[in-house]
Amino acid sequence: MPTGRTTKRRRRAPALDHNAELWAHIEPESSRLLLLSALDAFLARGYHAATTREIAERAGMSPAAVYVHWKAKHDLLFEISRIGHQAVLDEVERALARASGDPVERVEAFVTAFATWHAENHALARVIQYEFKKLPAGQLRQIVVIRDRFEELMREELAAFDLADLEGTMLAVLSLCIDLARWYDPEPGHNSAEAVGELYAGLVIRMLKAN
Amino acid sequence: MPTGRTTKRRRRAPALDHNAELWAHIEPESSRLLLLSALDAFLARGYHAATTREIAERAGMSPAAVYVHWKAKHDLLFEISRIGHQAVLDEVERALARASGDPVERVEAFVTAFATWHAENHALARVIQYEFKKLPAGQLRQIVVIRDRFEELMREELAAFDLADLEGTMLAVLSLCIDLARWYDPEPGHNSAEAVGELYAGLVIRMLKAN
Repeated sequence: MPTGRTTKRRRRAPALDHNAELWAHIEPESSRLLLLSALDAFLARGYHAATTREIAERAGMSPAAVYVHWKAKHDLLFEISRIGHQAVLDEVERALARASGDPVERVEAFVTAFATWHAENHALARVIQYEFKKLPAGQLRQIVVIRDRFEELMREELAAFDLADLEGTMLAVLSLCIDLARWYDPEPGHNSAEAVGELYAGLVIRMLKAN
Repeated sequence: MPTGRTTKRRRRAPALDHNAELWAHIEPESSRLLLLSALDAFLARGYHAATTREIAERAGMSPAAVYVHWKAKHDLLFEISRIGHQAVLDEVERALARASGDPVERVEAFVTAFATWHAENHALARVIQYEFKKLPAGQLRQIVVIRDRFEELMREELAAFDLADLEGTMLAVLSLCIDLARWYDPEPGHNSAEAVGELYAGLVIRMLKAN
């Protein structure tokens, strides 16, 4: 029934309101639409459960169209992971570049940027934080290189404080911010992403001060 | 080929070393084995991707055997979620019952128990924290009742401190501990689950003290 088919294949906008500037550079538009459809599908059903058929349908395309633009499902996950990880790294590096040399101010800048990003981009953050380990080894290694950079940067900043367990504290600070991806969902009356970023900066600074 | 079939259906032990006492009450053994196989499958592939066929195969049973013991796949997720949530709630309530009336000691007891549990049971914790929202509404409500109890208990303990944002701080403290499920993996040279629990109790107590 042609009408049914047309309806089924009607191109629809991604279900989620994704931060447009992160994806604008992906051309042609069909590639970008498939990438955002993959993001929605991974979020709704998990990487393994999301089929290329489902991703194509969300983008209003035929399953074969996916392979015109992307070689494999894991390439979609890799591109999403790479863009997401790079975006938050850029955000943190910009915040540190703007901060003075004062250790408290630098940690505040890092945590505010890192926590705010995870709250603001919680849907994307959830996919990249929980699914990246499912990438093939070569792609996984490239993502791990970016992830290691967060640990190095935080370790460098924390070295200015007198901590009994620098490594454990570094992991705790990053973890606190990353978990916003799991639960943060702005509702009326709740903290905004910026307010959460500021709250977390304050909590972390207190963590670092000697009793 | 009968030999092939026998090999395929050979009952195997769950892939992961699950805390046996949490599951010992589930009888008969076939029900328990299917539940632990479901836990492994949800962990490896996600709830939506894990099929009842795969769960049966992990337990060395036929797909039909799943329905002899469990009505639907979501009943397996519900039972895993209920047992996991109840186990950590029991742990926290026991720790609070043992603690004195001193607010610092009580928060330390809560955080030590809650963080240590999430580190020690990180595989189970990952499934219950990331998959429970996929339960049907009625089962979801029962899990949310247990989850709300953690917030109430932590809120009560935090009320003794002079906090600018009690609600945001309560969420941050629970979140810090829960995220251990995502990344904690004991490796030689890393903190043990107990050491992480103690570290986190110290970090949280510092968070709560006025600057």
